[in-house]
Amino acid sequence: MATTDTTAVVLFNLGGPEDLAAVEPFLVRLFSDREIIELPGGAALQPLMARLIAKMRGPEVRGNYTLIGGGSPQLRITREQAAALEGRLNMLAGGGERYRVFIAMRYSEPSSARALEAIAAEGIRRIVTLSLFPHWSKATTGSSRNEFERTLAQPRWRTTAFEIAHVEHYPDDPRYLDAFADTVRTAYARIPHGRRERAVILFSAHGLPQKFIDEGDPYVDHVEATRAGLLQRLQVPNRQLLAYQSRTGPVKWLGPGTEEVIEQLGHEGVEDLLVVPLSFVSDHIETLYEVDILFAETARRAGIAGYFRPEALNTHPLFIDALAQLVLHERGTSRRHAEPLRAGVA
Amino acid sequence: MATTDTTAVVLFNLGGPEDLAAVEPFLVRLFSDREIIELPGGAALQPLMARLIAKMRGPEVRGNYTLIGGGSPQLRITREQAAALEGRLNMLAGGGERYRVFIAMRYSEPSSARALEAIAAEGIRRIVTLSLFPHWSKATTGSSRNEFERTLAQPRWRTTAFEIAHVEHYPDDPRYLDAFADTVRTAYARIPHGRRERAVILFSAHGLPQKFIDEGDPYVDHVEATRAGLLQRLQVPNRQLLAYQSRTGPVKWLGPGTEEVIEQLGHEGVEDLLVVPLSFVSDHIETLYEVDILFAETARRAGIAGYFRPEALNTHPLFIDALAQLVLHERGTSRRHAEPLRAGVA
Repeated sequence: MATTDTTAVVLFNLGGPEDLAAVEPFLVRLFSDREIIELPGGAALQPLMARLIAKMRGPEVRGNYTLIGGGSPQLRITREQAAALEGRLNMLAGGGERYRVFIAMRYSEPSSARALEAIAAEGIRRIVTLSLFPHWSKATTGSSRNEFERTLAQPRWRTTAFEIAHVEHYPDDPRYLDAFADTVRTAYARIPHGRRERAVILFSAHGLPQKFIDEGDPYVDHVEATRAGLLQRLQVPNRQLLAYQSRTGPVKWLGPGTEEVIEQLGHEGVEDLLVVPLSFVSDHIETLYEVDILFAETARRAGIAGYFRPEALNTHPLFIDALAQLVLHERGTSRRHAEPLRAGVA
Repeated sequence: MATTDTTAVVLFNLGGPEDLAAVEPFLVRLFSDREIIELPGGAALQPLMARLIAKMRGPEVRGNYTLIGGGSPQLRITREQAAALEGRLNMLAGGGERYRVFIAMRYSEPSSARALEAIAAEGIRRIVTLSLFPHWSKATTGSSRNEFERTLAQPRWRTTAFEIAHVEHYPDDPRYLDAFADTVRTAYARIPHGRRERAVILFSAHGLPQKFIDEGDPYVDHVEATRAGLLQRLQVPNRQLLAYQSRTGPVKWLGPGTEEVIEQLGHEGVEDLLVVPLSFVSDHIETLYEVDILFAETARRAGIAGYFRPEALNTHPLFIDALAQLVLHERGTSRRHAEPLRAGVA
């Protein structure tokens, strides 16, 4: 059994369907999250509407996952990140401290509940949650944290005292930006010499309903901070833009849309495009399908000859180190602040 | 102006979005057709539900159309078929008879109403409708004919007397089967010699809710008639199967599903697959995206090395001749039966 010297790190991520049969159950969980999506008909009808929408979108979404290999690679990559982070933390940690890394997916297994069971089974009482979304939004980190808190409030956990700290955003963290800039530089170098400086760099963040931003979500500010940090590191003369991808649902969305911007750039005669997905730290449907297949086809049709994107951070050593340092810093901070043990509440 | 010697042929087809901006309006029209799809909430809510579902499916469906060139080619191909058919009919017609061919799309423009306006503008009073769905279903030809009749019942047309005949299905028409078999033979010949006789022929018809068949829709019988007619013409020793593609919505669907059958065949060690789409006579999203991109990827993942499909009939001369003969035969039949002029009804 682990001891009081062990800290559990819980990685928050969205989750995804591991195979085609899991697509509709995943969509049901996603569309049932009323904190994020308010379907017509009110809260009482939301579960029914979520099932209907999952059925209706199922065929096309299964098609998208078929084209990227038959399922989401997110759980596999998050597991690899967890293993790498655990190794890095235990290498960096001093004084007999140990780290164990767990995963809590918001809309697929393993869930928060399963992570807590595993943590408790190892006798660990100290937890640092670490979001794999560098930019905070209530749709991602906020939703994961709420789910985590709801799980902790269940009778199962009321008598267990955890000491909990959270790493919820790091859009301008220098190590994260160094790692990210490294991937962008590598992709940039693949643009043929002579055409390279005329290429356009298109940052593409995952979109959100405009309403979230209007209500105070710092997501756009965080995205802009990452863009600024990257540009400061890249020091290239290229034209660059920011757009938002993956619009869904019948509400006003952050814009401009990545696909429309690509079409426009093609019509302007742009020859080479470097698309930099901003929001995710691992490969997933939005890079492998949307960016690599769909936007690439849009670019081809619009006459863009060269189409490039950086590798996802995945287990890039600089990125894993950045995550480890964020956890260690949070542990240090929470120790200094002498945060009291979280006691179970009745 | 045309004379009483001129016959209008109205081609019934489904229609499709010509560009990406037309995808959601097209889906709204499709999902608003309560004869075909009964959404939860009843008839009063159907328009609202249709708009919601169109919004929800829009992103993925737009993606599919992006991958086949940014829109449906159906209107373009139907226009080419109309021009070829008009030429063929006027070549075959005798005794001063003339033909003009028009298009009535069910869920996009030109609609039945626009076709009737164009026919009336040319002073034509004799109409033969000709479905481009060889196999009758209430979801296709039935829906198009109902829409056509509803249009005719509008005040605009009550005082116009048309003589109308219908060609509604031709699954076992020998000329249609000869044309179809010709395309299948050409594709079959592309399978590498030595592997050809071990290839599996997979007929893939567009699926329908099982309920339609239970209520008497002859669609499956018609599909089977075409399959039998093709096999009789092909005279090949290959293993062959029938499956149904394009399942959508939360209801029981005709099976087995094409995608599942392809996976199964791959796991059985099948090396070469000839997929023969059965339901359509022109290229469209179900061949260009589903069969050529999605099922091809499914086959590749399942270990199937060779993947083949026949060209769509489009303007194949034998097929255009088949359509012309069907129209001429119907005209002859309706003349013999001395069908009275259709009078406007109050």
